[in-house]
Amino acid sequence: MSGRNCKGPFKILVLPGDGIGPEITREAVKVLKALSEKSGITFNFQHGLIGGAAIDEVGVPLPAETVELGKKSDAILLGAVGGPKWDNLPPEIRPELGGLLKIRKVFDLYANLRPVMFFPELKNASPLKPDIIEGVDILMVRELTGGLYFGEKKRITTEQGEQAVIDTLIYTEKEVERVVRLGFELAQKRGGKLTLVDKANVLESSRFWREVAEEVKKDYPEVTLSYMYVDNCAMQLIRNPRQFDVIVTENMFGDILTDEGSVLAGSIGLLPSASLNGKFGLYEPIHGSAPDIAGQNKANPLATILSAGMMLRYSLDCPEEALLIEKAVKAVLQKGYRTGDILEPGTTLVTCEEMGDLVAEEILGGVYDEGLPL
Amino acid sequence: MSGRNCKGPFKILVLPGDGIGPEITREAVKVLKALSEKSGITFNFQHGLIGGAAIDEVGVPLPAETVELGKKSDAILLGAVGGPKWDNLPPEIRPELGGLLKIRKVFDLYANLRPVMFFPELKNASPLKPDIIEGVDILMVRELTGGLYFGEKKRITTEQGEQAVIDTLIYTEKEVERVVRLGFELAQKRGGKLTLVDKANVLESSRFWREVAEEVKKDYPEVTLSYMYVDNCAMQLIRNPRQFDVIVTENMFGDILTDEGSVLAGSIGLLPSASLNGKFGLYEPIHGSAPDIAGQNKANPLATILSAGMMLRYSLDCPEEALLIEKAVKAVLQKGYRTGDILEPGTTLVTCEEMGDLVAEEILGGVYDEGLPL
Ligand SMILES: [Mg+2]
Ligand SMILES: [Mg+2]
Repeated sequence: MSGRNCKGPFKILVLPGDGIGPEITREAVKVLKALSEKSGITFNFQHGLIGGAAIDEVGVPLPAETVELGKKSDAILLGAVGGPKWDNLPPEIRPELGGLLKIRKVFDLYANLRPVMFFPELKNASPLKPDIIEGVDILMVRELTGGLYFGEKKRITTEQGEQAVIDTLIYTEKEVERVVRLGFELAQKRGGKLTLVDKANVLESSRFWREVAEEVKKDYPEVTLSYMYVDNCAMQLIRNPRQFDVIVTENMFGDILTDEGSVLAGSIGLLPSASLNGKFGLYEPIHGSAPDIAGQNKANPLATILSAGMMLRYSLDCPEEALLIEKAVKAVLQKGYRTGDILEPGTTLVTCEEMGDLVAEEILGGVYDEGLPL
Repeated sequence: MSGRNCKGPFKILVLPGDGIGPEITREAVKVLKALSEKSGITFNFQHGLIGGAAIDEVGVPLPAETVELGKKSDAILLGAVGGPKWDNLPPEIRPELGGLLKIRKVFDLYANLRPVMFFPELKNASPLKPDIIEGVDILMVRELTGGLYFGEKKRITTEQGEQAVIDTLIYTEKEVERVVRLGFELAQKRGGKLTLVDKANVLESSRFWREVAEEVKKDYPEVTLSYMYVDNCAMQLIRNPRQFDVIVTENMFGDILTDEGSVLAGSIGLLPSASLNGKFGLYEPIHGSAPDIAGQNKANPLATILSAGMMLRYSLDCPEEALLIEKAVKAVLQKGYRTGDILEPGTTLVTCEEMGDLVAEEILGGVYDEGLPL
């Protein structure tokens, strides 16, 4: 393979988590092993506890051992956390807050990357008309450490003696700079277009983001930077999503827009994500732990497999291998194989395990030899 | 007519504004006059200056005389403001900020009402598939006076010596109470379902809104109150918009969601709005002043005509007459008449004036006599 740095050995920490987490991460690891067999990249997989599984085993949702393992690894591949079993615990020690959000904080993962991908085979599942959704390929970058999420919150009594409430939106220059720079880096490697989404006609913080972006822009003369108000972006994602390449935005706007984006293509069960701090990252499907079908070999592992693909691209310097995984997934879909969540008339139902096998087979014998740009 | 209070004389202040404003308000007034002729309601129309037209005439975007006229009126019907001619003025004295936003502030218009309506005749224009958009009928209520828009904004230097920026989201109990109560009132008159959209898993202000809503709810036992996170709502509006009846939300979330909602049905040129303070309100189309086609008799007056319909419903206690205007608009669309912005193969192009005539004719001779629930 061409990847100069793409040899390994790469230390991957696998955190299966709860519900369908163990099944879907197992298939993603299977696919990575197939890639290793075919290409010679070495992966060292270690497994760790997180979420409800960690609570059951050692009493806390994020054991210190998991953090230690993470620190020694090149990237983390996570399944999903949470389930009704742990929903009555205090929020801070539940799988979501005490496990997932805490590990993001511990590793200072400041950027959440969410692709909005269109799979022609799934176009019937999109709520949008085909002429609007076809060809859409967006990478959304959401800032994860600042904004309204972590600013001061308080109840006050006004001078008029009235009850009132305050949330604070705060950003430091460093927080803005690193995520905007990442947006430029990504745009440079993709279509060369970066859209900063904000509300600069209202928010001082948005005007600050624009000032920082104008500075960072000087280092990326090939990237076209444009600005768009968040309310307009919420419209444009529906009317004309093909106009976007990379979008970068602050935490709350990103929360709203990434979720809006996730339903456009109708393939929410296939969408991966990355949470990055520089090259280090945590990779996971955007869907949840689906406790209702856990352990039944019914889950769709493709979002986790594609998350492993993002890991190759963003943490391991293996962009061609990432493409290979994406191509293998597309090939399997094209051949008509579907898990239950995306089953349609005329397609073939397969189990979680069979889906993993099919993608691995494509890599071992199919798409790999077809002359990808490797 | 049945409306006990719906007789008048009603004092309506008409503010044509800029661009296509004069043409579209003229047609809305024409329709109200037809209604008056048929039903015996008395309207006293006064005209005032706002926006660029006011700047050109008397030097300021919101003359004191306009405010005085507004104070003496039962409602205000506005066209649109702004245009390239005034874009180089300082923001505070431009038509938008110094005219439109200022009049909203002067009259303390605290709730913006935006219907998301589906017109079967325009379904080809929707970006959504017909099975998703058919039958959608949502009323969105956005709080207009609080939140991130009016809280303190500042640049600071952190203890570590870093540049940082702060915006403040602030709400008083009164601000929340009045708009939440309006949401309940509206839901009670419609489908009986109110959805409070917030981010209560993150924001203290959202938790405050929920506490207020739980109190106000006691006065509306027939209304079903539910809560939804804003990111989920951004998804649900696309996946399953029929689930919503009335949505109430804070200022910024409302800004984003009303704009997202406005493109769902593909009929943005037909969407009216109301900005209310109790019964008093300002009514206007959601579209802009379209300076490029101003004065050419091409503009679509339907959003302004439907805004006059909202005025009848929310400020003048004439709900049946409001329905009549809506029915007249639907009848004209059904007969295939279209302005240029919504023209499709097989439909008939009409001018702005002809469109107004057609709706007025329906009221004078058509739908009025067909046995509306009057
Ligand atoms: Mg979200
Ligand atoms: Mg807006």
